[in-house]
Amino acid sequence: MAGNSIGREFTVTTFGESHGKVVGVLIDGCPAGLALKETDFQEELDQRIPNNPNIVSPRMEKDTVQFWSGVFNGKTTGAPLTLTVESKETRSSDYEATKTLPRPAHSDYPAHIRYGGFNDYRGGGRFSGRITAAHILAGVVAKKLLAHQNIEVLAYTRTIGPINSQKEFTLTQIKENRKATSTRCPDLADDAKMEAAILSAKEAGDSIGGVIECLTLNVPAGIGEPLFDTLDGDLAKALFSIPAVKGVEFGTGFRAAQMRGSENNDAFRIKDGQVITTTQNAGGIMGGLSNGMPIILRVAIKPTPSITKEQQTVDLATMTNAQLGIKGRHDYCIVPKAVPVVEATVAITLIDHLIRAGKIPKTLRS
Amino acid sequence: MAGNSIGREFTVTTFGESHGKVVGVLIDGCPAGLALKETDFQEELDQRIPNNPNIVSPRMEKDTVQFWSGVFNGKTTGAPLTLTVESKETRSSDYEATKTLPRPAHSDYPAHIRYGGFNDYRGGGRFSGRITAAHILAGVVAKKLLAHQNIEVLAYTRTIGPINSQKEFTLTQIKENRKATSTRCPDLADDAKMEAAILSAKEAGDSIGGVIECLTLNVPAGIGEPLFDTLDGDLAKALFSIPAVKGVEFGTGFRAAQMRGSENNDAFRIKDGQVITTTQNAGGIMGGLSNGMPIILRVAIKPTPSITKEQQTVDLATMTNAQLGIKGRHDYCIVPKAVPVVEATVAITLIDHLIRAGKIPKTLRS
Amino acid sequence: MAGNSIGREFTVTTFGESHGKVVGVLIDGCPAGLALKETDFQEELDQRIPNNPNIVSPRMEKDTVQFWSGVFNGKTTGAPLTLTVESKETRSSDYEATKTLPRPAHSDYPAHIRYGGFNDYRGGGRFSGRITAAHILAGVVAKKLLAHQNIEVLAYTRTIGPINSQKEFTLTQIKENRKATSTRCPDLADDAKMEAAILSAKEAGDSIGGVIECLTLNVPAGIGEPLFDTLDGDLAKALFSIPAVKGVEFGTGFRAAQMRGSENNDAFRIKDGQVITTTQNAGGIMGGLSNGMPIILRVAIKPTPSITKEQQTVDLATMTNAQLGIKGRHDYCIVPKAVPVVEATVAITLIDHLIRAGKIPKTLRS
Amino acid sequence: MAGNSIGREFTVTTFGESHGKVVGVLIDGCPAGLALKETDFQEELDQRIPNNPNIVSPRMEKDTVQFWSGVFNGKTTGAPLTLTVESKETRSSDYEATKTLPRPAHSDYPAHIRYGGFNDYRGGGRFSGRITAAHILAGVVAKKLLAHQNIEVLAYTRTIGPINSQKEFTLTQIKENRKATSTRCPDLADDAKMEAAILSAKEAGDSIGGVIECLTLNVPAGIGEPLFDTLDGDLAKALFSIPAVKGVEFGTGFRAAQMRGSENNDAFRIKDGQVITTTQNAGGIMGGLSNGMPIILRVAIKPTPSITKEQQTVDLATMTNAQLGIKGRHDYCIVPKAVPVVEATVAITLIDHLIRAGKIPKTLRS
Repeated sequence: MAGNSIGREFTVTTFGESHGKVVGVLIDGCPAGLALKETDFQEELDQRIPNNPNIVSPRMEKDTVQFWSGVFNGKTTGAPLTLTVESKETRSSDYEATKTLPRPAHSDYPAHIRYGGFNDYRGGGRFSGRITAAHILAGVVAKKLLAHQNIEVLAYTRTIGPINSQKEFTLTQIKENRKATSTRCPDLADDAKMEAAILSAKEAGDSIGGVIECLTLNVPAGIGEPLFDTLDGDLAKALFSIPAVKGVEFGTGFRAAQMRGSENNDAFRIKDGQVITTTQNAGGIMGGLSNGMPIILRVAIKPTPSITKEQQTVDLATMTNAQLGIKGRHDYCIVPKAVPVVEATVAITLIDHLIRAGKIPKTLRS
Repeated sequence: MAGNSIGREFTVTTFGESHGKVVGVLIDGCPAGLALKETDFQEELDQRIPNNPNIVSPRMEKDTVQFWSGVFNGKTTGAPLTLTVESKETRSSDYEATKTLPRPAHSDYPAHIRYGGFNDYRGGGRFSGRITAAHILAGVVAKKLLAHQNIEVLAYTRTIGPINSQKEFTLTQIKENRKATSTRCPDLADDAKMEAAILSAKEAGDSIGGVIECLTLNVPAGIGEPLFDTLDGDLAKALFSIPAVKGVEFGTGFRAAQMRGSENNDAFRIKDGQVITTTQNAGGIMGGLSNGMPIILRVAIKPTPSITKEQQTVDLATMTNAQLGIKGRHDYCIVPKAVPVVEATVAITLIDHLIRAGKIPKTLRS
Repeated sequence: MAGNSIGREFTVTTFGESHGKVVGVLIDGCPAGLALKETDFQEELDQRIPNNPNIVSPRMEKDTVQFWSGVFNGKTTGAPLTLTVESKETRSSDYEATKTLPRPAHSDYPAHIRYGGFNDYRGGGRFSGRITAAHILAGVVAKKLLAHQNIEVLAYTRTIGPINSQKEFTLTQIKENRKATSTRCPDLADDAKMEAAILSAKEAGDSIGGVIECLTLNVPAGIGEPLFDTLDGDLAKALFSIPAVKGVEFGTGFRAAQMRGSENNDAFRIKDGQVITTTQNAGGIMGGLSNGMPIILRVAIKPTPSITKEQQTVDLATMTNAQLGIKGRHDYCIVPKAVPVVEATVAITLIDHLIRAGKIPKTLRS
Repeated sequence: MAGNSIGREFTVTTFGESHGKVVGVLIDGCPAGLALKETDFQEELDQRIPNNPNIVSPRMEKDTVQFWSGVFNGKTTGAPLTLTVESKETRSSDYEATKTLPRPAHSDYPAHIRYGGFNDYRGGGRFSGRITAAHILAGVVAKKLLAHQNIEVLAYTRTIGPINSQKEFTLTQIKENRKATSTRCPDLADDAKMEAAILSAKEAGDSIGGVIECLTLNVPAGIGEPLFDTLDGDLAKALFSIPAVKGVEFGTGFRAAQMRGSENNDAFRIKDGQVITTTQNAGGIMGGLSNGMPIILRVAIKPTPSITKEQQTVDLATMTNAQLGIKGRHDYCIVPKAVPVVEATVAITLIDHLIRAGKIPKTLRS
């Protein structure tokens, strides 16, 4: 059973359901001495609400964090850190009429089987995108710890539906624009096109997916564990906890399958007394270990399952065919909301591996 | 530390290095009462040697299993099962001359950093493809257990370099041809083209990658654990233990990012009193749980890092730039060899989740 | 790091500090479908307050449970169950004056070293007996699950200081008296003597310890895991989480060391078609596995470290010798309070092993 | 399932059965760079054979270690370390006649239930004392690592049957005599008496138990994890993996239950600029954390279950009462053999906690 925890040293356990009282996280293994205050969480929590309200669900979740344990005199104590966000606006009645009609591409059907019908089905319950608010909470703590090692995690949108922003982004562009644009795409022109693509899906009563890329800077070489706790494997596993993720790739990824070794191998050179690679096809990970270069990964996000268009489903109570038109408030594209969640998830995984590798002290000194 | 184990209930720990005495596996949690004999392993071990010897390394590893513990009177006892294959043909001298020159795209450099130079560098040591022989051993046990539930795992080659075998394969074709063709592609015409593509890379002193697809039949609905031990997340993590894997996707995968919800959502219908989906875009997994339909995943395999062509590297002893021409016996394309490893890895992960879900008894009765 | 979780299948993680907002528990792996309401917890929470207020700390903790996640329509959902009790009466100022003076026999000194001084030192923080309220919460859930298998866990006091209640108690006596007596001793005469012993220590500005025994009925044979996850080993480990425990023994325990095999071995007989043992020297566990007979264990509780008498300590700020007279409200004997905690802890460990052994369904049906 | 592994960072998994080919250990997480050669193991392996052959089983197990993986150029590589001892002298036929007659106080009966009769019953199979040879192997590695921190683990015999050696031993006496005496008691006079007590039990066709004490020096303060991975809890759990252990206590242990706080509390003082305690009643552990003083624990060993005297048992094939006279070669007292096993087990647990606390580097430098 279980399955709600991740990380061996920085162990993140999340709890709460879409329409429950709270969504929260318990972190066991956060080093003592990290300065932490409620306001540290606000910017990241707000990132889940895209700048253009037209492209998201009218269910606005303006979240604020509550601290329950693990902080004393403004610093972490080394004891479990428990954080929640309250769920205020839940219209559970939306879900009563359709509770025996599993929504296509949602977890409703297998969750019903898995839990014998006892699962909280309202809004997807434990499987809802809502619960990724807890990823964000843990990610804020992880990123504060990573900052102690000068490590930066930067996620942004690469594609939404047919719009593929293939340019090479500058670091400045990524840092400045990914939080400023509605779609979290660093290119302003492509952002506008992506916004249009979302609105077009919305008008059609439909939804749309995309690809999120994440760049991580300054991870030292040699982080990760062979054989089964590889850095890429653990990142992939963590990323699949985000609802709607259908694929994960590193560096050239699926493109590597079509390349020759002489093209795909990254040559080593010495630069400023350091070993570097002249290209970044490996995405910063070789043999499951970081190679000291930027870590680059991409995540495929499927179109949001909830659409207004009528769909074919079944009635689990009568085991007969049925039709479903989803009325609840939902998103037309969750890519923009998922960008900070990808960033948080990568941060959580990295800090765990850095602690495992002995790169983060058990107690931080100011 | 650690990292050499995977699985919570069917816990697989592998050991051994490329040029060590043995490569082996210790399985803790195998149910008691499973009939197991040495000959059960031979067909799968032999699958690692493709039918056409021209397309693989001249280092032929004809392996046979040795049992060390956990079997009594021809059946598993419930105690740890320890299995090895011996390593006979190792020409370690090949590696001495270049031991401070990390091979591009191999783990040599980060492993050197990670282990302070104490790692066994011969042939990649613990990071070598050779160690996937232990995946095969564990996979044979896992597949015998899965057979008790009528579950079949079938991996095969989809692409090698530029050759993409996009047809829909019949189940018969997959079952008959994937072991018969040199490249493990179920389509005979594409197999011939793929073979030619490998030989062309070989002639150029180069290497080539590909995509392996894996189809799993008869997994019941509701297998997997939310939130962080999802079935797709755990499969992805396990698959990244195979050297050269750079991406993993389920169902429509990265293609889903370009689709609309109305296209990508799989409609539910009742068929023969069972819930089915009319399309298989989810790849059999929704919300991290199996949905009762076939599980379909694809794995990107990069071109083999070892190539005969000269490459740029560095000398870690002198921290200067250097050139490297790899002389050791190596593969031009590891895709065919990796096919049974993908199959084994999927089987290991599935059996672990089936035991977690209480679907496999702790003691098997004949 | 970490360390705040126990159990592989019924995973209990506790959080909170003595003077924090709450003490709580997150249970991951509770089967779905267990009926659970707030009032189920009250009787057990109240057991931590002995009937005679003179023998305990004036800090009265009348606790009530709050549910945060994992319950829907009055039943567990299979999602993480989060429960807390609020901490109302905390006089943190008691601890400011002495914050650099570690209290002898308390965790203050090693905790200060372990967490670099960042730990919440008020009332022992994370190391306080207060946090065992979370054991009680988890224990209530565990005992409700055990009741589905007809398993009963019954802890009671065997000795307090010099008073050793050595009689063989009847099951009726244990069930009726252990909750009715102030000291949780099933023998009324011994209870009175024990109460007097506590009051005598109180008058002397001193404290007193004791031994708690725990009897578990109806555990089937074959529960436990060789070699390192034995039932006795896991029970012992769990019991050492209770502050003040200094020893754990099973069956004849330390007395066995003085016996001969012919005296200590429990003979097997067939009774009513079942295998039984005619004596219970093994305490129900052989080779780390339950043998189907009652499980009997005993726990040594040291005298409460906090005493009014002046004690020698050191000042960690100045690294000089110092004197300490503890003024905070404290207990003269924690044995009575610890009895329900022992019971809860045994229940938590047993339910975990029963789930591991496949004896508890993943979903309960009414 | 599972259960054959212990330790989070220095993860020890053992395998093999009493009458199998080998007994072995796989250590995952041993730091790289530790010098290790076969002869390092001999002295400890030989310690399992007491000096006086009359007091032990005629089954002499002169073991030598074999290395299978994880060592390269005489040093550990950071990869899994696999070590075995071969089992040469096994007379399995001794067990055939009685295979359905569970031996009283042995694991035979619950193991039969647990594994549905598939367990290797010969000599107790996986539950035999023989498998503690693997503890010894892991202990040698652990003690070599502990020596890097100047930590010493010293176990010795305190009592055998009625002979209780209660004197305070000097460190010299412990170090010189515990390996020299037959019974591993540091006091020569008491050793002779203990030997006589064993021979007296032998003559009576009976067996005898005892108490082993273990002293660990130079563990720094602050090692251990609250709340559930306490140092005392983890030591206790590990010690219960040794067959025949029925109790574990720390410092004053069960005696503490009869003491007052003013007697049992260890006063702090400053000595040579360090915090010390003037008495050692806590046994070096407070609140689950080491306090920097010697760790003192005691383990109760029951009399060996195997005795020559006839005993009452049952026939599991016919479910009828039966008689059993054990003919196999067995020990009259396993205390002397268990002494190095206790030492090894404490060492394994400590090194795991030291690595968890970040006190052992991931890579050792000469």
